[in-house]
Amino acid sequence: MYSVDINCDLGESFGAYQMGNDEAILPFVTSANIACGFHAGDPGVMKKTVRLAIANKVAIGAHPGFQDLVGFGRRDMAVSAEEAFDLVVYQIGALQAFVQAEGGVLHHVKPHGALYNMAAINASLAQAIAEAVYKVNPHLHLYGLAGSELVKAGEKLGLHVAHEVFADRTYQADGTLTSRRLPNAMIINQQEAVQQVIRMIKEGKVRSQQGEEVAIQADTICIHGDVAHALELAQLIKEKLTQKGIQLQTTGA
Amino acid sequence: MYSVDINCDLGESFGAYQMGNDEAILPFVTSANIACGFHAGDPGVMKKTVRLAIANKVAIGAHPGFQDLVGFGRRDMAVSAEEAFDLVVYQIGALQAFVQAEGGVLHHVKPHGALYNMAAINASLAQAIAEAVYKVNPHLHLYGLAGSELVKAGEKLGLHVAHEVFADRTYQADGTLTSRRLPNAMIINQQEAVQQVIRMIKEGKVRSQQGEEVAIQADTICIHGDVAHALELAQLIKEKLTQKGIQLQTTGA
Amino acid sequence: MYSVDINCDLGESFGAYQMGNDEAILPFVTSANIACGFHAGDPGVMKKTVRLAIANKVAIGAHPGFQDLVGFGRRDMAVSAEEAFDLVVYQIGALQAFVQAEGGVLHHVKPHGALYNMAAINASLAQAIAEAVYKVNPHLHLYGLAGSELVKAGEKLGLHVAHEVFADRTYQADGTLTSRRLPNAMIINQQEAVQQVIRMIKEGKVRSQQGEEVAIQADTICIHGDVAHALELAQLIKEKLTQKGIQLQTTGA
Amino acid sequence: MYSVDINCDLGESFGAYQMGNDEAILPFVTSANIACGFHAGDPGVMKKTVRLAIANKVAIGAHPGFQDLVGFGRRDMAVSAEEAFDLVVYQIGALQAFVQAEGGVLHHVKPHGALYNMAAINASLAQAIAEAVYKVNPHLHLYGLAGSELVKAGEKLGLHVAHEVFADRTYQADGTLTSRRLPNAMIINQQEAVQQVIRMIKEGKVRSQQGEEVAIQADTICIHGDVAHALELAQLIKEKLTQKGIQLQTTGA
Repeated sequence: MYSVDINCDLGESFGAYQMGNDEAILPFVTSANIACGFHAGDPGVMKKTVRLAIANKVAIGAHPGFQDLVGFGRRDMAVSAEEAFDLVVYQIGALQAFVQAEGGVLHHVKPHGALYNMAAINASLAQAIAEAVYKVNPHLHLYGLAGSELVKAGEKLGLHVAHEVFADRTYQADGTLTSRRLPNAMIINQQEAVQQVIRMIKEGKVRSQQGEEVAIQADTICIHGDVAHALELAQLIKEKLTQKGIQLQTTGA
Repeated sequence: MYSVDINCDLGESFGAYQMGNDEAILPFVTSANIACGFHAGDPGVMKKTVRLAIANKVAIGAHPGFQDLVGFGRRDMAVSAEEAFDLVVYQIGALQAFVQAEGGVLHHVKPHGALYNMAAINASLAQAIAEAVYKVNPHLHLYGLAGSELVKAGEKLGLHVAHEVFADRTYQADGTLTSRRLPNAMIINQQEAVQQVIRMIKEGKVRSQQGEEVAIQADTICIHGDVAHALELAQLIKEKLTQKGIQLQTTGA
Repeated sequence: MYSVDINCDLGESFGAYQMGNDEAILPFVTSANIACGFHAGDPGVMKKTVRLAIANKVAIGAHPGFQDLVGFGRRDMAVSAEEAFDLVVYQIGALQAFVQAEGGVLHHVKPHGALYNMAAINASLAQAIAEAVYKVNPHLHLYGLAGSELVKAGEKLGLHVAHEVFADRTYQADGTLTSRRLPNAMIINQQEAVQQVIRMIKEGKVRSQQGEEVAIQADTICIHGDVAHALELAQLIKEKLTQKGIQLQTTGA
Repeated sequence: MYSVDINCDLGESFGAYQMGNDEAILPFVTSANIACGFHAGDPGVMKKTVRLAIANKVAIGAHPGFQDLVGFGRRDMAVSAEEAFDLVVYQIGALQAFVQAEGGVLHHVKPHGALYNMAAINASLAQAIAEAVYKVNPHLHLYGLAGSELVKAGEKLGLHVAHEVFADRTYQADGTLTSRRLPNAMIINQQEAVQQVIRMIKEGKVRSQQGEEVAIQADTICIHGDVAHALELAQLIKEKLTQKGIQLQTTGA
């Protein structure tokens, strides 16, 4: 029987600023990646989001990013591997304390934005992040782009890793995502997006923009909560996957 | 047999900025309060300081403060009790993760600067901070001004608390410290400072600026690492207390 | 002939976070107070908002606040008078540069949130802020609560000051605003709010919650852009004041 | 007659953190680049440093950097050209206001750290920075690495530019500095450093690490105030250049 995790970035509000629609998206996901105060989120938002995830029986993950609030953690920063290790440990810890305070369990770590993208292709950065996760708690799962340096680094250390795929993004022949700067980066048609996901789960394959079949492992699907139609797509994915007998559950459950 | 803890604020460097002389002061203390990135400290400094404390077999504490780096956490901020709870949980967690990563044990929490002073006299703030500590880990010790609202709040929750006294500060008839804005706030003569400490430990008393004897509980003595002659005073306290048969050890050890 | 200024806080978005509805409110105001990056706003938002104000022929003001983004500058901070001077100079300058770059003219300064409230009752803080404005440019107008220490400090220095009143807030017998923590702080009925404004402008009086007539000077009316029905109230005020022959124009125009 | 400017980065302290020895270095320089609060400096430090520069009759420059205090602005950040424009305008303005408040004149702008290095080789970033300077005040001088994209962009706009050279750094055949990651990046022998400077000023040439003669324009020499022996080197440069009849004065004086 097939199963897959559906994850979403949550807790991205900050102070007086609201972002996303966390309560609406939670019924459609099995894992929540919660911002840890560097690129988004603040202590109050983190507490509230942890409570919300526990109430919805969704697995809780730390979502560490660069300390670049004005850039929302989306701008590459030339951090050293050691700096990456340090900022990941710090942010996992901050979220973990709210999870402890609320009686929950921290399940995974997924780097955010530019940190995620850099760790997908930079082996030493990937290793530093994987080590940070491992040293805080070797039972934590590490989420990274399917087939990336990050999941490889996690596997090498013996961490549980989750290969992440995207429903509404197109792929290149080498298994990477088509850059958002290029046309056709996004799959607008939601039925197509769902079909791509089902095929990745059941056949372990995706058709690239170049037309080739590419092998891909789909342990977890990323759903965005902050874009238009996100809720609709999340709903459709849950419905169609369930129809196809694919069980929705978090990794390692 | 008498025993007392000696604590010091450490890890107050930040990025390219150096502060304090952590390596020199560590041999003279039994507990380290490590800054958590809000009023001082950064992830890299926290890791390094945790390692240093472990190497020196000194008990590790989180030293959370207001998110006011330019003011070094020394300016009162009108945070709500809930905001205080949240920022304490966050900062304990951040430090705790470095302690986990280094294979150590988190021992205590001592609020910093304005947060410490406000929690000494504001019961609802004190309760929020004590609850934050308790909810993250009920085995943590809570350090606060001797006789303050903070230690009372901790005791009410069932936390281990440490009543903190100051070697080189003078006291008022109500047991509070003489404000630094007033003359005679500091005890310049180091022999006098040591005598005051010994009397607080052995007799549970201190002579106030008004000449009255005031009852005081001395579980832990605060040593400052960043002021002139601090090292000399720390050395003298260790020497004299040991001569008097007072055992230097962290609380609960 | 009567005239009055209508001001609104603008440019409160930050990075990926949107706040307010600046484009919609601008046609109903004559002065814009633009956040300067400490409590809200960022360099990109400031540039865009300055452009918008110039395009709408609205007078541009700097809106400096405490460096407390997570608290939106609404939490009292125990800054010294000198620190207040410094942070106001800094923020005026930052905004002024965008105004220069866009070929506009900086017209006024209005402190934000907790800084505004503290400066209304704290004479030394008020003086420091007024001096900051004066020293950067003595031709700038200073906006403060009608009858407050802030406008008094500005007048003493020879600055143009604008006594600010609120359409939808009730007043106390001493001329201060009813605290938002109390019931009846807000005037819900928009017709009543407009009547209060007209009376303050034409008669220089407001009826306090205690039923007494209080003398008040109404140079500028504050409109909030971020609350429900704000737009509706702004529209109504513009319409009714115009009907009553009250000219809407910025101070000193 | 030959003349040259000697510039130094100043005002890099922050809050409770001290950095550099501004008062000692000022007698040996003709231009001060003052940090603007993003990578270093705070409003209080900026005011104090502006006063110090005025008292020493040294030309005042803004020294804008990336908003990365923990990294001291030394880590590359993938900002867009527009973001670079915005952060430069903001920081020039902040410093300019302190200069106005103190009755001085803002003379130049020199980007800091990673922003300086990126602007040396990235033409669109260089253009954005030059435009930011020009739009705030077209009379400001722009300091950049000799022969870099930054000075080219400034020249194209009609700004006064200053080609900056380094006394104690070695050069490559293409006129760029030898990376600090390589051996021989620094000239340890101070007499050699001074000879290199004199030759750059008088002959417009420097001998590269590869042994070739490279044409170089030396309008301003950078002296570091925060490294060992900096003061000694500054003193030696002033003495030897004066002996050689080279006048020390700021650009455009």
